[in-house]
Amino acid sequence: MVHSDVAVGLIGAGRIGTSHAQVIAERVPGARLLAVCDPRVEATRSLAARFGARAVTDPTELITHPDVEAVVIAASSTAHAELVTAAAAAGKAVFCEKPAAMSLAEADHSLAAVEAAGVPFQVGFNRRFGSDFRAARSVIAGGGIGTPQLLRSLTRDPGLANPGAVPPWTIFTQTLIHDFDTLNWFNSGSEPVEVYATADALVAPEYKAAGLLDTAVVLITYDNGARAVAEASFSASYGYDVRGEVFGSAGMVTAGDGRRTAMVLRDQHGLHQQTARGDVELMLDTYTAEFVEFVTAVREKREPSVTGRDARRALAVALACITSYQQHAPVAITDGGVPR
Amino acid sequence: MVHSDVAVGLIGAGRIGTSHAQVIAERVPGARLLAVCDPRVEATRSLAARFGARAVTDPTELITHPDVEAVVIAASSTAHAELVTAAAAAGKAVFCEKPAAMSLAEADHSLAAVEAAGVPFQVGFNRRFGSDFRAARSVIAGGGIGTPQLLRSLTRDPGLANPGAVPPWTIFTQTLIHDFDTLNWFNSGSEPVEVYATADALVAPEYKAAGLLDTAVVLITYDNGARAVAEASFSASYGYDVRGEVFGSAGMVTAGDGRRTAMVLRDQHGLHQQTARGDVELMLDTYTAEFVEFVTAVREKREPSVTGRDARRALAVALACITSYQQHAPVAITDGGVPR
Amino acid sequence: MVHSDVAVGLIGAGRIGTSHAQVIAERVPGARLLAVCDPRVEATRSLAARFGARAVTDPTELITHPDVEAVVIAASSTAHAELVTAAAAAGKAVFCEKPAAMSLAEADHSLAAVEAAGVPFQVGFNRRFGSDFRAARSVIAGGGIGTPQLLRSLTRDPGLANPGAVPPWTIFTQTLIHDFDTLNWFNSGSEPVEVYATADALVAPEYKAAGLLDTAVVLITYDNGARAVAEASFSASYGYDVRGEVFGSAGMVTAGDGRRTAMVLRDQHGLHQQTARGDVELMLDTYTAEFVEFVTAVREKREPSVTGRDARRALAVALACITSYQQHAPVAITDGGVPR
Amino acid sequence: MVHSDVAVGLIGAGRIGTSHAQVIAERVPGARLLAVCDPRVEATRSLAARFGARAVTDPTELITHPDVEAVVIAASSTAHAELVTAAAAAGKAVFCEKPAAMSLAEADHSLAAVEAAGVPFQVGFNRRFGSDFRAARSVIAGGGIGTPQLLRSLTRDPGLANPGAVPPWTIFTQTLIHDFDTLNWFNSGSEPVEVYATADALVAPEYKAAGLLDTAVVLITYDNGARAVAEASFSASYGYDVRGEVFGSAGMVTAGDGRRTAMVLRDQHGLHQQTARGDVELMLDTYTAEFVEFVTAVREKREPSVTGRDARRALAVALACITSYQQHAPVAITDGGVPR
Repeated sequence: MVHSDVAVGLIGAGRIGTSHAQVIAERVPGARLLAVCDPRVEATRSLAARFGARAVTDPTELITHPDVEAVVIAASSTAHAELVTAAAAAGKAVFCEKPAAMSLAEADHSLAAVEAAGVPFQVGFNRRFGSDFRAARSVIAGGGIGTPQLLRSLTRDPGLANPGAVPPWTIFTQTLIHDFDTLNWFNSGSEPVEVYATADALVAPEYKAAGLLDTAVVLITYDNGARAVAEASFSASYGYDVRGEVFGSAGMVTAGDGRRTAMVLRDQHGLHQQTARGDVELMLDTYTAEFVEFVTAVREKREPSVTGRDARRALAVALACITSYQQHAPVAITDGGVPR
Repeated sequence: MVHSDVAVGLIGAGRIGTSHAQVIAERVPGARLLAVCDPRVEATRSLAARFGARAVTDPTELITHPDVEAVVIAASSTAHAELVTAAAAAGKAVFCEKPAAMSLAEADHSLAAVEAAGVPFQVGFNRRFGSDFRAARSVIAGGGIGTPQLLRSLTRDPGLANPGAVPPWTIFTQTLIHDFDTLNWFNSGSEPVEVYATADALVAPEYKAAGLLDTAVVLITYDNGARAVAEASFSASYGYDVRGEVFGSAGMVTAGDGRRTAMVLRDQHGLHQQTARGDVELMLDTYTAEFVEFVTAVREKREPSVTGRDARRALAVALACITSYQQHAPVAITDGGVPR
Repeated sequence: MVHSDVAVGLIGAGRIGTSHAQVIAERVPGARLLAVCDPRVEATRSLAARFGARAVTDPTELITHPDVEAVVIAASSTAHAELVTAAAAAGKAVFCEKPAAMSLAEADHSLAAVEAAGVPFQVGFNRRFGSDFRAARSVIAGGGIGTPQLLRSLTRDPGLANPGAVPPWTIFTQTLIHDFDTLNWFNSGSEPVEVYATADALVAPEYKAAGLLDTAVVLITYDNGARAVAEASFSASYGYDVRGEVFGSAGMVTAGDGRRTAMVLRDQHGLHQQTARGDVELMLDTYTAEFVEFVTAVREKREPSVTGRDARRALAVALACITSYQQHAPVAITDGGVPR
Repeated sequence: MVHSDVAVGLIGAGRIGTSHAQVIAERVPGARLLAVCDPRVEATRSLAARFGARAVTDPTELITHPDVEAVVIAASSTAHAELVTAAAAAGKAVFCEKPAAMSLAEADHSLAAVEAAGVPFQVGFNRRFGSDFRAARSVIAGGGIGTPQLLRSLTRDPGLANPGAVPPWTIFTQTLIHDFDTLNWFNSGSEPVEVYATADALVAPEYKAAGLLDTAVVLITYDNGARAVAEASFSASYGYDVRGEVFGSAGMVTAGDGRRTAMVLRDQHGLHQQTARGDVELMLDTYTAEFVEFVTAVREKREPSVTGRDARRALAVALACITSYQQHAPVAITDGGVPR
């Protein structure tokens, strides 16, 4: 039996929106890119035309279009929560890039809308779909390393193209939020209870006064006693570097090696391997897998494996980091992630 | 601009045909699986239905169907050459699984048909599309290892499900032919001039009398003096293992590591990584890439990057191996691969 | 020309003293184990006899013996500083296991004695002599990774044989002190200015009330803005694990992989490598290299490459960790490492 | 109890003799370098002086010196067998560099002398003492890979300093003989029964007319059906490369990776590791381990773990290679390795 394809409306035609459009149109069986929406008219037309989709400028038009079954939100972060709420209210399945909200209140509001509508809602924590991260989680869940005690997750992005355009706290709410979710997921069953964050502008110090933080290290304590370190930098010269490590009472798993291929060259200078340069290059299969999960959940009318509650939990850590950085002190995460 | 999809007719609904159907239907942008043809009616219907294609039992019907632009041949090896000839004569682009022919005469006949028709013709030497093999070739072509002097290519298949059903010489004409093509490609610009082959039934010795050879080592001499070793076994307990190595005057490249993911587990027994178990698991991206090349060549009405002449060259090596095995002596490959 | 061997007197016949005795007697050219001193009479006799050395019970006798040119101190930590002072005062070259002192006042006192005597003084920060750590440092010093921005050093010890016998703060003053020195050395030219430490008893929680901390994570800020993470655990099931990582503006170096040999086994369960089980197994070459440096410095009458000042700097970090842990707050390291 | 050291007399002060002198004098507990003998007077004096040994010019004087318990032969290959015979006849334990003889008759003669004298006799197949090769053998012996079916051993030497000075057949009798022994050892319990050898002058073709072969590939068949490939080249630009691989019915082991240390550098050009440049650098621990075995065997008055019979078996393969190369045909190894 052949299903009819899930018709997807995409909001956001920027860098990541473009990647998502291609993945949905070309790599996800059972999905169809029906429409693309972005206020930038030309970019939208061009992207839509590339994949035979319609170009729309008004998100409400896209959300309420009767043929759109699922809405993928890759707009600017500040618009996420409101778009999630609107799409859910329209009865559409929703995929939203991280962060799903900018405050816990926003998160609670959109979560309530999703629950009221009973629609599938997935958040863009793509790292959960990387083959090595999944394998690591599977080993942990199977007891292969015993009880997690020390965790690590890091994101090193190859470039800071336009430091002046980076909103404050981006390193916590946009970048490290991936690591916070990864750590929460690796240490499932436990909750983060305290955060200590340090951050600086080491890559582009001239922008520090304007609020840019490009380097950060965060130490998280979980209620099972495990400690986790999350690290981020906006300037990895050697490529996109995403890694995880979980040490437990009976072993350790690691994920992420950043190699482009398994090819090895040896010459008079030694041994060499190529490294993946950008996130799309490193993670195309990962992006594909997250949309396969979304489309499958839409078809099966079930909750996706990464939920709005996961997004709220990671956001609570990110917000506590901001407070910790400002107070230069450890900060407790209480219910709802409100700093004590 | 959106192209209309290339309509593909697939001949062969066996194991590799099924994999190709899925790859073409789900992973290759710009391709559409229009029809599937196999004498096994039920299997054909089931496979066709899975991807919304038509089921056909007569290959001529499929080949001559006006909507079919490209024919993919994954039928039994003995039928390949005739089907290539028929599809080319019908003006269709052709993709044929290896071996493209069982004799040099057959190969010449179908090559002539392809040339007369001027249609794109690609042979299923998928290893050329593996990301690490491609990277290795690119380093060689760029002069990164100097002049190739010692080469190696191997295929270790995880299982010999039904030894009684394996046709004689399979290890040379079906398995090692991949390695012969890989070696020819790595050592481009040179021609194989001599072969020495040894083979045995070490995995299933009880079938040796019936002609089964399940383990083989071949030593090839090229006209630039380079020596190459090709190895195959039908029983790799640890998974599907495909590797290449080229040592030259200025360095060495290697490809293939057989790891399922980059995940590493350390426990009381040491360090562990998962290995890829089957060819489809190990090579799904590779299969996808070869069909992307084929569909692109069809659209661009050009010769694909791996041609019928490459198939003939690899076949000449395989046939010389049979002679070498029978004569227990090195065998020269003269023009056309006819043993001296 | 053959030098006469440097005659070494060893104080301490425990686990690490025994290892040092063997290394000095059998692996360090130009060294001779002359005497071993420990209050445990039988162990001392047995160890001395094994290597043809004399057994002594009084450290003063060993230190003042006219044939002893160099004193190696592997006694209990609380005795280190006093023994260093005494050996220096006797004009002997001194090698002291870490920590060289238990307080900054002690450290200053013994450092003054060493300076007054003008004798070579080396501290047992063996990690500086590991081939991979040395290579990493050499790359950093040569500018290969630009300016260090994010550092990591960790120690995971395979076992906690007798939790009840571990003195309080051991994880900071005995274990992580290696990591603090490594980080200081990797980030040479900068000074640690702030520490935030968290620690717990996750391996043997029943001993937490008695003061045992078996798991710790420390975040250090340097005056060049670099952030460093030091991690320790007393229970690595998979063997002795010592690693370092330095990420800078132009690249990253890593050291440490814990593999026993380069042998790789693949079987039906995947790929496997053996891991080094204990510190002596993992680091025998490292221990040898540190004593080669010591004996060379003694002969050349020069300061060894790792000094008492390095020991004091690492101790200041360890002591600040204790304060940070007690105050549950970041702690500044001011001149002399006295917490603000 | 302290043993008195085994007094070693070394014949040969060339490159490998110098390395052996250092290893024996500095790295092997329980060994003492008593005398060095070489016709080159100055080199001998200098080497002897460096380690406090006596310089001797007449090998008979060294062999018959009453204080010499063990003779290490690193003279030119053509003198090996006669020196072994003389040392054995003098009742001395003997270590001889490979090849232990240049013909099977020579080998038999010196073996008879060794057996008559009942002295320990070890041959310099150092690869057996590499930690990874030993671990691989141990896995094979423990059944970890089932029955060996496909084997590989290779030697790639970084440089051909003086092609004109390389005696004919060196690649078989001096270089590949290491690989032949390694393969025999990995496939213990089976005997090599046939050889096919191909070789060429690809590195220094201008010396081919003078008999130089600098590149060779050998295919060996064992009496258990296993096939083995041995490869050698005299010009590895990337360093000294020694590897082994054994594929069996239940798994595969590999040994050898040629990395200098575990340090990894990532920068804008990718990932890099240093490679070991020369045999002494790569194999210092291996050389040490082989002499530890020799000295232990001397003390324990037992046969070393690598024997004269092993040397004869490897030599038989090497000599069959010469015949195979000359006849351009496979050559059987009959009893004694005499080609049929």
